[in-house]
Order: sequence, then C-alpha cells, then structure tokens
Amino acid sequence: MMGEYGDAAGEAHDEQLVAWRRELHRYPGPGFGEFYAADMVARYLRRIGFTVRIGSEAMDSSAILHFDAQRVDEAYRAAVAAGIDQVAARRMRDGGTAVVADLCGRPGPLVGLRFDMDALPIIEAESAKHPPAKWRFRSEVPGLMHACGHDGHMAIGLGVASVLAARASRLNGGIRLIFQPAEEGTPGGAASIRDRGLVDDVDYMICSHLGLGVSTGEIVCRAYFLATSKYRAEFRGRGAHVTNSPQDGRNALLAACSAALAIHAIAPHSQGWFNTNVGVLSGGDEQGITPSWSSMQLGFWAENSEVHDYIDGEVSRILRGSAIAWGVESEATLVGRAPTAPQNGDLASLLGECAEAVPGVTSVVDTIGCKAGEDANIFLAEVAAHGGQGIYVVIGSDLRGGHHTPDFDFDERSLSIGRSVLASTCLSLLGAGTGDCGT
Amino acid sequence: MMGEYGDAAGEAHDEQLVAWRRELHRYPGPGFGEFYAADMVARYLRRIGFTVRIGSEAMDSSAILHFDAQRVDEAYRAAVAAGIDQVAARRMRDGGTAVVADLCGRPGPLVGLRFDMDALPIIEAESAKHPPAKWRFRSEVPGLMHACGHDGHMAIGLGVASVLAARASRLNGGIRLIFQPAEEGTPGGAASIRDRGLVDDVDYMICSHLGLGVSTGEIVCRAYFLATSKYRAEFRGRGAHVTNSPQDGRNALLAACSAALAIHAIAPHSQGWFNTNVGVLSGGDEQGITPSWSSMQLGFWAENSEVHDYIDGEVSRILRGSAIAWGVESEATLVGRAPTAPQNGDLASLLGECAEAVPGVTSVVDTIGCKAGEDANIFLAEVAAHGGQGIYVVIGSDLRGGHHTPDFDFDERSLSIGRSVLASTCLSLLGAGTGDCGT
Amino acid sequence: MMGEYGDAAGEAHDEQLVAWRRELHRYPGPGFGEFYAADMVARYLRRIGFTVRIGSEAMDSSAILHFDAQRVDEAYRAAVAAGIDQVAARRMRDGGTAVVADLCGRPGPLVGLRFDMDALPIIEAESAKHPPAKWRFRSEVPGLMHACGHDGHMAIGLGVASVLAARASRLNGGIRLIFQPAEEGTPGGAASIRDRGLVDDVDYMICSHLGLGVSTGEIVCRAYFLATSKYRAEFRGRGAHVTNSPQDGRNALLAACSAALAIHAIAPHSQGWFNTNVGVLSGGDEQGITPSWSSMQLGFWAENSEVHDYIDGEVSRILRGSAIAWGVESEATLVGRAPTAPQNGDLASLLGECAEAVPGVTSVVDTIGCKAGEDANIFLAEVAAHGGQGIYVVIGSDLRGGHHTPDFDFDERSLSIGRSVLASTCLSLLGAGTGDCGT
Amino acid sequence: MMGEYGDAAGEAHDEQLVAWRRELHRYPGPGFGEFYAADMVARYLRRIGFTVRIGSEAMDSSAILHFDAQRVDEAYRAAVAAGIDQVAARRMRDGGTAVVADLCGRPGPLVGLRFDMDALPIIEAESAKHPPAKWRFRSEVPGLMHACGHDGHMAIGLGVASVLAARASRLNGGIRLIFQPAEEGTPGGAASIRDRGLVDDVDYMICSHLGLGVSTGEIVCRAYFLATSKYRAEFRGRGAHVTNSPQDGRNALLAACSAALAIHAIAPHSQGWFNTNVGVLSGGDEQGITPSWSSMQLGFWAENSEVHDYIDGEVSRILRGSAIAWGVESEATLVGRAPTAPQNGDLASLLGECAEAVPGVTSVVDTIGCKAGEDANIFLAEVAAHGGQGIYVVIGSDLRGGHHTPDFDFDERSLSIGRSVLASTCLSLLGAGTGDCGT
Repeated sequence: MMGEYGDAAGEAHDEQLVAWRRELHRYPGPGFGEFYAADMVARYLRRIGFTVRIGSEAMDSSAILHFDAQRVDEAYRAAVAAGIDQVAARRMRDGGTAVVADLCGRPGPLVGLRFDMDALPIIEAESAKHPPAKWRFRSEVPGLMHACGHDGHMAIGLGVASVLAARASRLNGGIRLIFQPAEEGTPGGAASIRDRGLVDDVDYMICSHLGLGVSTGEIVCRAYFLATSKYRAEFRGRGAHVTNSPQDGRNALLAACSAALAIHAIAPHSQGWFNTNVGVLSGGDEQGITPSWSSMQLGFWAENSEVHDYIDGEVSRILRGSAIAWGVESEATLVGRAPTAPQNGDLASLLGECAEAVPGVTSVVDTIGCKAGEDANIFLAEVAAHGGQGIYVVIGSDLRGGHHTPDFDFDERSLSIGRSVLASTCLSLLGAGTGDCGT
Repeated sequence: MMGEYGDAAGEAHDEQLVAWRRELHRYPGPGFGEFYAADMVARYLRRIGFTVRIGSEAMDSSAILHFDAQRVDEAYRAAVAAGIDQVAARRMRDGGTAVVADLCGRPGPLVGLRFDMDALPIIEAESAKHPPAKWRFRSEVPGLMHACGHDGHMAIGLGVASVLAARASRLNGGIRLIFQPAEEGTPGGAASIRDRGLVDDVDYMICSHLGLGVSTGEIVCRAYFLATSKYRAEFRGRGAHVTNSPQDGRNALLAACSAALAIHAIAPHSQGWFNTNVGVLSGGDEQGITPSWSSMQLGFWAENSEVHDYIDGEVSRILRGSAIAWGVESEATLVGRAPTAPQNGDLASLLGECAEAVPGVTSVVDTIGCKAGEDANIFLAEVAAHGGQGIYVVIGSDLRGGHHTPDFDFDERSLSIGRSVLASTCLSLLGAGTGDCGT
Repeated sequence: MMGEYGDAAGEAHDEQLVAWRRELHRYPGPGFGEFYAADMVARYLRRIGFTVRIGSEAMDSSAILHFDAQRVDEAYRAAVAAGIDQVAARRMRDGGTAVVADLCGRPGPLVGLRFDMDALPIIEAESAKHPPAKWRFRSEVPGLMHACGHDGHMAIGLGVASVLAARASRLNGGIRLIFQPAEEGTPGGAASIRDRGLVDDVDYMICSHLGLGVSTGEIVCRAYFLATSKYRAEFRGRGAHVTNSPQDGRNALLAACSAALAIHAIAPHSQGWFNTNVGVLSGGDEQGITPSWSSMQLGFWAENSEVHDYIDGEVSRILRGSAIAWGVESEATLVGRAPTAPQNGDLASLLGECAEAVPGVTSVVDTIGCKAGEDANIFLAEVAAHGGQGIYVVIGSDLRGGHHTPDFDFDERSLSIGRSVLASTCLSLLGAGTGDCGT
Repeated sequence: MMGEYGDAAGEAHDEQLVAWRRELHRYPGPGFGEFYAADMVARYLRRIGFTVRIGSEAMDSSAILHFDAQRVDEAYRAAVAAGIDQVAARRMRDGGTAVVADLCGRPGPLVGLRFDMDALPIIEAESAKHPPAKWRFRSEVPGLMHACGHDGHMAIGLGVASVLAARASRLNGGIRLIFQPAEEGTPGGAASIRDRGLVDDVDYMICSHLGLGVSTGEIVCRAYFLATSKYRAEFRGRGAHVTNSPQDGRNALLAACSAALAIHAIAPHSQGWFNTNVGVLSGGDEQGITPSWSSMQLGFWAENSEVHDYIDGEVSRILRGSAIAWGVESEATLVGRAPTAPQNGDLASLLGECAEAVPGVTSVVDTIGCKAGEDANIFLAEVAAHGGQGIYVVIGSDLRGGHHTPDFDFDERSLSIGRSVLASTCLSLLGAGTGDCGT
C-alpha cells in the first residue's frame, strides 16, 4: 500500500522528502511504465491544489519513437497489484504516464519545472553496505532500479510543489510541474509532452538533475548536454545452405560488420567532439546457413547540432551503401533523439543568486559540460524557440556507486537543497519573495 | 505408449518398416537426447537375439565436444513422460544414448552398419499437404522434427536386424549395428562410440543415408563428404561509457566484425573447394557502452583434409590477430569436427551387385560428392586406418521439401529398398546367400 | 639486321626452327607492340606463298580494352631502330600488329591456327646458367622478355607454314595462320581479330601452347582454361585538411580498403572454383590530407562462365555500394576478359592420332585443366558458336624456371614436335596425307 | 647571384624586409636542403656581428627521423648552381643546414627566437593574379615553393637581428637566433638542434608564425598546437600465383586495408580531440599475384600528450595485430613527431604589451588553438623542462590562398610588424628599452 503525504500546513518538511524518495525508490517503473510514481505524484498534487493532467491530456503518445509494450504491460500489472487506483491506472495505460500539474496565481509569467520518473533495467545491489538495502527501501520490482536518481528528482518536485502551494496567493504568475516518463536509454517522454503543446506557453523552463559528479552543496546553473540519436538498424539478406548453394546467399551479417567498422571510422569534425557506438549487434541463425538477417543498436553523441547532423548523414549513407555492397536490404529506425539546447545567462544568474542563499549550498558554478544526452533538452529547445528562457541545473550530491550501476545511491541531504533552490527561484521569478522556502 | 514390433517368424515386413518409421517420427529427440528411439531400438534388438550395449558401454561421453545439457534434460523428461522404461532411461541419461548391438554367427569377419538417430530443432509443418500431418504421425515433441530422415534410417536398421536375426545360423561372421546419437549440427556421436573402441574390430563398415538428391530406386555406392569443423569463438574486451571514457573500452564487437570479414576472405586453395561461414555473431549489451564481449559460431567445409587443415590454421591466426589488433582476448572452442574418409571400391562393387538384384532398384551409381560434412566419416576413417573397408551408401528417395526444412518428407518405398540392399550385402559378406532378404 | 629464312625446297628444318625462335627471343615486343615479330612473320609467310593481312586488315583496334600507348610507342621506335621496314612498321603502328595469313588449296574446309606473339615486362636473367644468356640470344630490349614461350609458338607457326606451303597443291581446303598480339595480362588481341571477322569462316580452330607443366614428348589434346576478367577500379573522393576540416573529406582510400576486403569475401559458388584478387591498390597523396583518390587493379578467374558472371555481378555491386558507403564516386573499367570455351572431342581424337605418329611424342593425354585465363578462348568460343570445332593443344616442353619468371626457358626439342603435330593434323583435316610433315 | 644586405647604420628598413623575403622566395629549399637560405642568413648575421654556428655545430643530424637524400642532393646542386659559397655549402651538406647565431651583451638572460626555413613540394601558381608571379619573385626551383610563409619568417628574423645588432651595447643578456630546417611534413629540424644542446641555456624562447587565419594587425601571444606523430608502416607478405597456389600467398595488402580501417576506428578520447589519417597506402604488383607488400603513411594529431600517447599505443597494436591476422610481417618507422608544449602567461603578457605599442598592430589576443602540429613545440617543451619560459606567437597577415596551396601569398606589411613586435619584446626582456625598434 501507498502512504499518505503532505501535512495540513502545506509545508514539506525534509523528513517528508526522504520518505517520498524512499517510497518511490521501492516501486520503480520502466520508461512509459511509471504507473506507481505517476499515480502517487498526481494524487498529491491534486490534493494540495494543483490542476493535474494525466494520460492523453498530458502527452501525445504518437510522438513515441520506441515503446516496449511487454515491459509496460508488466509494469501496469505490478502497479495495480501494488495498490494504485485502477481508474487512474487505466487512463495512464491508455494515454501515457506523464503528469503535468499547474498552479496559477495572479497574471504573470509561467514557470515550468521538469522532473523525470523512469527507472533502469538494473538489478539493485543487495549488500548491507548499499543504503537502500540497509534501510529497507530497496527496489521491490525485480530487474528494475532507480539507479540514476529520478526518485530523488520526483521527491524534490513534490517538495517544490508543497512550498509553492503554501504560497499560492502570493504568486504573480503560474507554475507548471512536468513529471515526464521515459528519459533514459531510448527516450521519448519529453517529445510526447512537447507535442501536446504543454511547453508552448512556458516563459521560464528549469530542468534539473542530482549528482552528475557534482558534490553535495554545489549547484551548477547550466549543464550543457550532448546532442544524441539512437537507431536500430536492420539488414535483411537471404539464407542459403553454405555448401550446396552459397552463391544464393545474401550475407546480412557481413553487411552489418562492414557497416559497424565504417560507422566507427567516421572522420572527426573540426567543430566538436563526438562519438559513435554500435553497442549491440547480432545476426544469423546457424553455422551452416548464410546469415539472412542482422540487427544493430547504435547511438551517437555530439557536442553540437552541426556535428550531430553530420554524423546522422554519415550513418545513414553508410547503412545504405553497406547494404548495397553486400546485396541486402537495410532499414534504420530512429528510437531516440535529444538535441543540444541554448541556456539563458540571466536565468542562470538568478538561480545562482537564489542558490547562494540556501542553507547547505557551498558553491555555485555557472556552466559545465556533460558527456551525455538529455531528453530535457527538447523542452529547453522548444522554450527558447518561442522566446522563453531555460536552464538545466545540477544539484550536487555525493554518490555511492556511479549513475547506472547497481550500487548507485545519493546523499539525501541534497533533496532539501534542491527543493529550496528550485522553489526559491520560482518564487523570485513570480515576485513572491524567496526567504523561507526551505521550511 | 509404444507399440510392439516384429513377428514370430523374425521377418520384418514392409508394413512394419513404415510403422516403425512413423512411430519414431512422432517422438524425435535432440542430439544425445534420443531416449525414446534408443530405448525402442534396444528393446527390439534384444528381443530378436542381439547382444545390446547401451549407456556408457556403448559410448565414451568424454569425447563429446558440445553437449546441450538443458535440451537433453528436457528430452529425458519428455521420453519418461512418453512411457519409456525408467531404468533404461537413467542408464542412457548417465552414460549416453548410443545403442550398439551385436549378432554373432560362426567365425568370420565383423560387418558394421551405422544408423543415426537424432532429430533437428525445427517446427514441423502442419499443412494437410504434409504427409506426417495428413497421416497423423507428425512430431509430438514441440520444436523438434525428424527433418533429415534419421527416422527412416532407424527403421531400415531394425529391418536389417530382423532379416539377419532370422538367418543368424547361416552367418559366417558377425554383425554390429551402431545406432549413433548426435550426427547433426555440432555432432559428436560417432567420436564417442569410436573412442569406446567399438569399431576397432570392424572389418566392413557400411554407413548410409536416405535421399540427398538421389531418386527412389537409385543406389549410390560411395558418397564422399566434406571435411568440416565448427567452432565457437569468443572475444572479451572491456566495456566503457562511450562518452565519459571511450578510451577505456576494448571493443570486442569490432574485433569480431573484423575477424568475420577476414575469415570470409581466406584465400582459395588450389587443391580443392571449400567454404567458411560465420553463421551467428552477437555482441554488446547497450548503445551507450563499448561492447565488452562478442561471440561467433563459425564452420568450414573442405573437399579434403589438406584444405581443411589450411583453413583451420588460417581461422586460428585470424582470431588471434584480430584480438590483438582490437586489444581484446579471444578464445576458440571446437564444437564439432568430421574428417573426409577413404572408401573401398571392392566393397562398393559388392554392394552395387547386391543392389541390382533388389526389387525396386532401377540404377546403381558408383560415386557422388556431397557438399556437407558427415559424422560417419569418423567410423570410415577409423576402419580404414586399421585395414578394414568402408563405404557410405545413399539410398535414393524422392523428397517432399528439402532436408532440414519443415516440409521434409521422403518416399517410404525407399525403406524396404534400403533394408534389402543392406541386408543382402551383409549376407553376401558373411557367406550366407542373398536371394531372399527382402521378405 | 634480320636474317633470311626458308630454303629452296620449301622445307623448314629443325635448325631453322631453333634459329627463328632465338631471333624472335632477342627482339621481344609488348602487347600490341610486337613490331619486330609481326614484320618478320609477315615477310616470311608472304615469301612462301601465303596471302598476308596486316594492320587494320588483320584486326579491329576499336575492340581493344587496354592499350599502353607509351609502351607501344617505345616498341615502335626500337623496332625501327632494329631495322624493320618503315612502311610496314607504320601500317602496324596505325592499324595494329596482328598478322593473318591464308593459304588456299582446292575447295574444302578452312583450318585456323593461332600463335601469340607478345612478351612480358620482365628483366631476363643474365646468369650463364640461363641458356639464352649462355647461347647469346638473351633479350636485347631492356625490361622485356619472352618469358612464356611465345617466341617458340611463332617459330612453330612458321614451321607449320613451311610444311604446308610445300604441300599447297595437295590441300583440299585452306589454312589460316593467326599471329595474334596481346595475349598476356590485360589482353585484347584475340577480340580485335575476331571483331574483324577473321574466324567467322574457320571450320577447325587449333590453338596451342608450349610447356604449362607438361613434359617434352607429351601432347595434351584439350586444355581447358578459366574464364577471367580484369578491371581497373577508381574511387574519387575529396581531400580535406585532416585537422582543420576532416568532415569535408570523402575518403576514397577507405572505400577501396573496404571494397577490397569485400571482393575477397565473395561467397564461394557451388558450381565451380574461382578466385578474386585485388592485386594492386594505391591511394592518397600525403599524411595530412584525406585521401581524395584510390585505384585498384583486380582480376578474377572462374571454372566456368556461370561462376564468372556471378563474380562479375558481385564485384560490380561491391564497388558501387562501397562508394556509396564512403560517400565517394567509383568507376570500373574492364581491361581484359577471356571466356571459357567448348572443345571438340572428335578434333581432339584426330590430333591425338596424328601426334602418336610424330617422332619424339611419348604420350598423348586427352584433357587437362589449366588454372589461368587464355585469350585464345575467344577464338574457340566464336568458332563453336557458328558450328565449327576447336581445341587448345599443349605441346609438352621441359622448362627451366616457371612461366613468367626471369629464368624461364624451354626445351627446344619441343619446337619440331609441335610443328609436326600441328602440320600433320592440318594435312589430315585437309585430306593431304600426314606421313612426312616433320622433315 | 645573391644581393647584399643591411646598411651602414645597422638599421633594417621595411624595404629591406620585403627584398629579403622576395629573394628567399625565389630560392626555396626542401627540408634539410635549405642551402641557399642558410647561406644567405649566415653571411648576413656574421657581417652584423653575430657569432654563427652552421653545419654540425648547429645541429645533430643523428636525431633526424626522415631524410630524403635524393631531394637534398638535388637542392645542394641547385644552390651551388645559384652561386652560394662552396665551402659553406659543403659544411652544410655534411653537417646540416641549421643556422644558430648568438649576440651577447652584458650578463643577463638568454632570449631565443626561432625561424623556420624549409619550403614545400608545391608547384607555384603562374597566374598574373599571384603576386610572386606578377612582381617576378616566383620560385625558381621547379616543384618547390615557399607556400607557408617561411620566407617571411626568415626576413623577420633578419630584421630582428638588424635591430638588435644596432643596439648590442645596451643589451643586458644575449640573443640566440635559431634558423631551423625541416619544419614541414615529417619534420626533424627542431629535434636536431635541441639534441646539439642549443636550447639548454635559453631562458626565454619565442617562436612565431605568419598568418594562420589571423588578420594583418592582429597579434596572438600564445598559439597552442596539437601533438603529432607520423609513421611509415610496411607490411611484408608473400606473393603467390592466385590461381595456381593462392594458399601460398600472404596478403600484405588486405592486412593494410584492415589496419587502415581499424586505425580510423580508434575510439574517441574523453580528454581531447584527435584525428588519425592513413594518408597514403599502396601495395601489390599485379593482378595475378597475391600482394606481397604494402606500405602506408599515417599521421595523427591530438590536443594533448595523453591523447597522443593513447593513439600511439592503439596504432602500434593495430599494426601488429593486423599483421598477425593476415599472416604477414609489419614494421612501423617513426618519421616525424612534435609534442604539445606549455606556454608562459607572463611572457605572453609582456609580448602583448610590447605589441600594443607597435604601429600597425590593431589588436592583441592572448590564446588560440591551432589544429596542426608544430616542430617548434620541441623547443618550447625543452625550455619549459629546464625552467625557462616560452611562447608561440602568431603575427597576423591577410592571406591570398591558404597555407600549403599554389596560390598562397601573405600581406608583406606584416613583415615589419612582426620584426618590431619581436625585437621590441627582446629589448624589453634584456632591459634595453623598446621605443624605437621598428625603424
């Protein structure tokens, strides 16, 4: 059973942040299968006064590039078994797991905050040294784990909501909290929400992440991510008995091997660093038959969109040419994409100032580069495109084990810091004072 | 439940051959998991007077290069469920599924005959056009099918046994019937029986196969097969986050891709045709990590042992060099091997003469080449090595669907032809007359 | 100055054969640059009564796939310097070096014989152990050598001409002697003569070669050669400064590397042996620039035309696909091609019978396979296509050093044997008796 | 004949700079073959009071990695023909073309300046639009051209020398002018001078270059270059007749192709940008023979030494492993190498201040990155290693045509700017005032 959240005063205490985080940690959901978390978030936000959209009101599922129906179905059944409301569960199953919640004050700008909800297909460590095991909030879903900190992100989001809801009458503008599904791996959550038009009217967009190599107490105002695309490429040839009629075969495996080598040999670009990776490749059925099929999962990451688009063109051409060279058919399916995005210096400065006043913050850094892609850049790019401002904030947190490892865990003190930095910045943007947002 | 076989007179009628074949077709077993067939064969041969070895008396399982324990275990349970004797089943599970049966007459030469028993991992056709479906003897074991004709081979073997047992008193010499497991794919059955010493004293060795492109009524006295080896090759590298520290990765997948291309580019050999095939390749776990492992299943087939050994050396060197070039480790495991083997012209002539007297035989061909490997060559090579004579006979049979396809079926008229050709040759070799062995 | 040939009796003695061969050996010419030989042959044949075509009457130079103008020009000047007639030299320079000579008797069939004239770009051995050096008939043309035996072929051709001319009145039919240029490497001589229509009316076509691993005294009636094609392939990309703007480059060298690997990895064909070889590859200008060009010379050799055409398609597709994969342009130019050709058993038998009567012939073999291509197959294929008969004869000759090596030399006793076998067969075909053609 | 330089007052006027530059432009020399320039420089410096080392006193030729003896010999003969002193020419031919000249004042620090002298194997443009053609100082050495600006560097060096010699009595320290050979392509000039110990006692080292994308009037105080290495790699296999005995071949060409692909597929490094380039590859002799040899020229360029050394290890392993995979031998020869080097901020600031006072200087930039290697980094690294300070200065110059193109030319106004910036900085470092060094 799920617990109950919040208190009569509408204030989220630090203990509450930890409690939220630990409950969310116990019930991880896969991309587009975050039923438990979405239900918990939606119910709490509704209770404290937010107008909440879920299902097809919150996202456009036609924008999803990659959807693992079986995994989502399993998650659905697990969440229902864990006790979530069946009506809400069905709406999310049919329309998607995004939760978008608005709190409107007097006329004024709209501030968007984004928190991601999905977990990873990792078996969580069981060792007593692993805090979630020691303190008994280890994942209860086999094969899934919050190994990136999204449980913390959601807890922070609820904490910010709590602070703001308690000050709703003072707000000169609105708040939109976006709890997005499917940020990891082959994402799609951000695009599905953008395509529902839900960042079209956002004036200030603040995305955030815990950890990322930044220590507890440090705040980075602008983290720049790489542009990235992920593809599944298939080659289809023709099997043939390799001794009776080898000439009738069309070797889809050698086509993939040749393409993989070429994709790794794409010439560097003078305008920025990049990498490509054929991370998974398989093909063929048995020793005595020409491999009639092969499949590869590949990704690339680039410092900017010029370089990203250069690689995109190269990869496409390599796949096509390799198929021709080996007499097979090829097909490439885009399963994930995130752009780079501009970030606003003024908004960064404002957040930096707010952060410096938050207890526990020991240093503020303006800018870092992160060697990874981020789905949130879709929001930042969209907001910038229509004239708004955006930043991607890193809330420092000392880590045990790296992101995406079974031993991952973060310093829970960063939850209240994150909550306060973000809430304070929102209050500042909406002309509502900033002095007391952490209590 | 199994049926009962044979008749009081010890004569196998043609209807009996068909009945045996169809029962065996219904209960296919995988390599080293032919429990049902081995039990049925052993019981019948014992009843008609053969001395029968099973389990560790019939084979040396330490010679097996590749053993799929899970599949064999499933087959064991299925066979027990189908009703075979549990004592025999356990002996075969512990010691192997080979059946070697002797019938000894007066002093004289020992004639060996070999029949193979294993089925293939193929889902049998269900169409009413497919005779086993139409006549209701389709495979009852999911995912396994006698798609090569080994069911027919065993029926012929039982038929030969029946003929010879009825004439036991006339034999100037002995008969050894070898029902071998695991001929297909990555074989091992023949080597395990040879290593138990069971062909050491064989003077005449006759192996045989139905079909192979030869029509019903035709008999080929000597079919020459290719030498072949099959390997599993593994590359082990090191995963690394492809944007954070790509330089720490050791790409086992590209090593495999490079090796696969090189293996297919081995220079031709002037002394004979060959082919190599990397039939299966897979590697890597996800897009964002340098592939830390890869695995390939490869085979090669050559017209003679000189060419076979040339390729063997090339493949070994390519795997080693590719591993070095990509900074990874490699390991190659031999999972199957069959040699070429000499065949004896005199024995072929004798069989040809016997065949010409068999009703239904329309033509006799001395020699053909078959573009495949054959585990039986291990027997022929061993017998030739100690001075005996051997041949590999093709019993023509019109086919529906090719060997190793879901639609495979053969002309059951070839069963009695095969039985009579082999039995007649045995009687001739053992000085027992040949005139009436088909009835 | 050249010597004078023949004698009053019209009989070519064996000493004459050796003298001819040695003079021709001293003045080798490259493909389409055999001016000295062609002039010598044409003058002698004219003198003894043949009707002789040279230049554009003897060949259609538009059929030439590959012509090395500079090398031919050098050969022209060398031949003029060596004293050949300038009028004839100019006709051959403008129209080609083929010589086609007819001798017509009474009405009857037309028998064609083909002899090739070109030498090889090899520096001849100087050692005293090398007979041409010891006996002072070593090549006098720097960098060229008769290292395949074509000097001997021409001497035999003149010898046959001498025998037949002396018996012209007895011939029931005609003789056509074809002295063809450019058989080696990237040939073209045969096609150019065929395209002038000069084998359209040939009823019996006999081509021949010395040596080829057959000993002095042996005659092979039918030597079957491989079908072959040779291509020059070019890739054109775009150079770029590899640090300033590597992304602007289009790497023509890696395209060629990738294509070369793929061409060597073309799957075997069940219908016959073949080999492919990228024998020469070069590309790129300097370390700091993306290679903007590459070039390869490749050939393939196949047992039959089905396999030849299969490879031809594969190579073409590989070149095209590799170019696309690497973003470059490709172009393939055919520079040589020879087919396989049928050979006639009756004509082979006749020649075999004639050969057995020739002094010095110790054995006659019907058929061998030769692992090489032969331009003469163009004649054999054409003659067979219009209903004639053809064979390719090997005149055994013990060799010192292999064909195409600086130490190559053959046993000159084979000259008179070859002369007599061919002349005798011609006389037999033309109903003119055979008994005395060697003296 | 060469002209005479300088004037009685010891002042170098701007016209003189242009005259020097144009004479040097007319007589370009290849790497280690800069006889004309070295002689002209040495004679002038001696005349104005410098102590001059040439030949083996100025460099240690055993440090040269790559020396093109034929090209140097041609240059030697051309320079002698152009009139340079034979005694000096011989000393330089035997000992090297470096010129190192000292001017010593009162005790104090030693300031080193480095100017490079070699030209490029480029055929200079002839168009009237090309200023050297229009003004008649186009290269008079066929196939060589000062297409990088080293003629200007030397003119600036002579100008600086002139200024300092005129103020010799005021200098509190010494000046060492290093005119180095062989900076381009596969360099070696700097290492050979360093190995003679001639920068061991340098306290301040200033290297410089014209142009590099910086406009006339701009000065860059510190240009950081890439670390680079260049290799020649050879593969030696075994030729074989591709139809008679292909199995005896060892394909050195496919080894190179495979290695080239792998070298271009070296994984990116998180600590910096790099590129690799197999710029030239060739192998094989003819279509019918397995390629027995191949050769490649390859280079790589990296942002720092960590990345450089990573690639160095990868390349070495790839060459070795590819050789093993294809059964051939490999050998890699280092033909050029330049490191990255630290640069000193204080020295950069001082030069920046001096530059701002020079007429014609419109802007001063502290730092840029240059995507190329620079031999001069060997000096900077050495000086830093023993505690000195160094910088690499770019003297802006508007260009016609890019560096290393036939149309390259620079704005000659930058000569006097460069002279004055460098001379002024030297005077400042040696406590000799800076106000009047440009006139």
